[in-house]
Amino acid sequence: MIVIKVGGGEGINYDAVCDDIAQLWQEGQQLIFVHGGSHRTNQVADALGHPPQFVTSPSGYTSRLTDRATLEIFQMVYCGQINKTLVERLQRRGVNAVGLSGIDGRIWQGPRKKVIKVVENGRTRIMRDNFTGKVTEVNRDFLQNLLSAGCLPVLTPPAISFEGEAMNVDGDRAAAATAAAFRAEELLILSNVPGVLRHFPDENSLIPQLNADQIDQVAEEHAQGRMRIKLLGAQEALVQGVHRVVLGDARGQQPILRALDGQGTVIIQAQPEEAA
Amino acid sequence: MIVIKVGGGEGINYDAVCDDIAQLWQEGQQLIFVHGGSHRTNQVADALGHPPQFVTSPSGYTSRLTDRATLEIFQMVYCGQINKTLVERLQRRGVNAVGLSGIDGRIWQGPRKKVIKVVENGRTRIMRDNFTGKVTEVNRDFLQNLLSAGCLPVLTPPAISFEGEAMNVDGDRAAAATAAAFRAEELLILSNVPGVLRHFPDENSLIPQLNADQIDQVAEEHAQGRMRIKLLGAQEALVQGVHRVVLGDARGQQPILRALDGQGTVIIQAQPEEAA
Repeated sequence: MIVIKVGGGEGINYDAVCDDIAQLWQEGQQLIFVHGGSHRTNQVADALGHPPQFVTSPSGYTSRLTDRATLEIFQMVYCGQINKTLVERLQRRGVNAVGLSGIDGRIWQGPRKKVIKVVENGRTRIMRDNFTGKVTEVNRDFLQNLLSAGCLPVLTPPAISFEGEAMNVDGDRAAAATAAAFRAEELLILSNVPGVLRHFPDENSLIPQLNADQIDQVAEEHAQGRMRIKLLGAQEALVQGVHRVVLGDARGQQPILRALDGQGTVIIQAQPEEAA
Repeated sequence: MIVIKVGGGEGINYDAVCDDIAQLWQEGQQLIFVHGGSHRTNQVADALGHPPQFVTSPSGYTSRLTDRATLEIFQMVYCGQINKTLVERLQRRGVNAVGLSGIDGRIWQGPRKKVIKVVENGRTRIMRDNFTGKVTEVNRDFLQNLLSAGCLPVLTPPAISFEGEAMNVDGDRAAAATAAAFRAEELLILSNVPGVLRHFPDENSLIPQLNADQIDQVAEEHAQGRMRIKLLGAQEALVQGVHRVVLGDARGQQPILRALDGQGTVIIQAQPEEAA
């Protein structure tokens, strides 16, 4: 099993992504495809008069402030526009794709954080009406049932809370939880940068390889914004038995084949002898 | 099997719809739920600067003019906002709902009409860049697989063309095709009117019962706008073995239980003795 997460930033080459997925799928490779949609969501939220807001947690992670109106716009773009145009692209390439959110069939379940702490101008404050949470349970049986029927799952946030509420979750970490549930050989997390950069935004400063036990230090010293969450997702996947994580680039041709070939930041389990 | 179609007009009581569905589902009734989203799509299309346009065919049916931009807005609202908020409502009521479009798993397939004829000011003209079509094949195995796994399918247009393109289809007729594929006992088509009205919009002029062989005449003489397509859907379902169709009202409390109880316009197979 390979779990492929492709972000929703500007510049993603979705046609090339779907070309690669179709090729791998037709070769018999088991796949689950997870996608984002942040760039387009920001555009639609602006157009609908409810512009996006981002907040930073006390531990330094950035995320979308998700009130109920934002959640519904988020669903429009992620589950409607992006998910269905990806499913259509795959269907046109002969792949029997099935697009689902984490709400459907309770694929991604976990606790909702109704109240969050955010840091603004150096001060921590409490925010309510928050529809975000974290995936702690993956409905593996449901996904396996789809795969056994010859269908490729195309998954997107939101997820569902234990109380049955839709909630925004981080797509990278949801993909990591999915990869962990299948003990996938590979988790690819592709976005619009080449991987982890030593000197962001200098794309020539790519860190080509890491061991799992180096993630904390690299996240602290080198990773900006969204990359910190991707590293956290990578770490969560590796701890739960995923063999290899590649943080790669989805902007050019053959983005998935290149990532499988090791282009990007490749992260592997720490080797006992190296860790000593 | 009961197939329930609830339209997307103004005034639909979605909470009451989901209450009834949850009750029936928990009693063990097999269901497929199909929904619309036209009213909200019009609002979002306006807000995004691509206002809706409706066209009338030479045979007198009204439909949404669907170019590619409209199709993507349509998907945002139908597959994103409406579908996922319905799935969420059902999950909160303990129903393991799974929301899908007709593209997913090729649930609803058929020919696309790339070119349509429309009547404007009494003159017929040709329009291209059209993403509409008709459902001629329902992936019954896929839906049966979901039902067997204890999941309630929540379906929405668009459908998929034989060439793998997303295309807008009429939701009432897609629901009719689905009911036909399962030889359902009942097809309920609920909207924001009480049923077929003899003197539209006088809600006291409801036609309470019809035989299938009266549909053509009633459609010709009494049915306005969207009701003509609902009658066509009813006819298609009955011809293909569905036992009973009810055109009912989804605005009040217990809309589905009331329709099952015969409130609305009930249409049954023509009885040979009556038809003589």
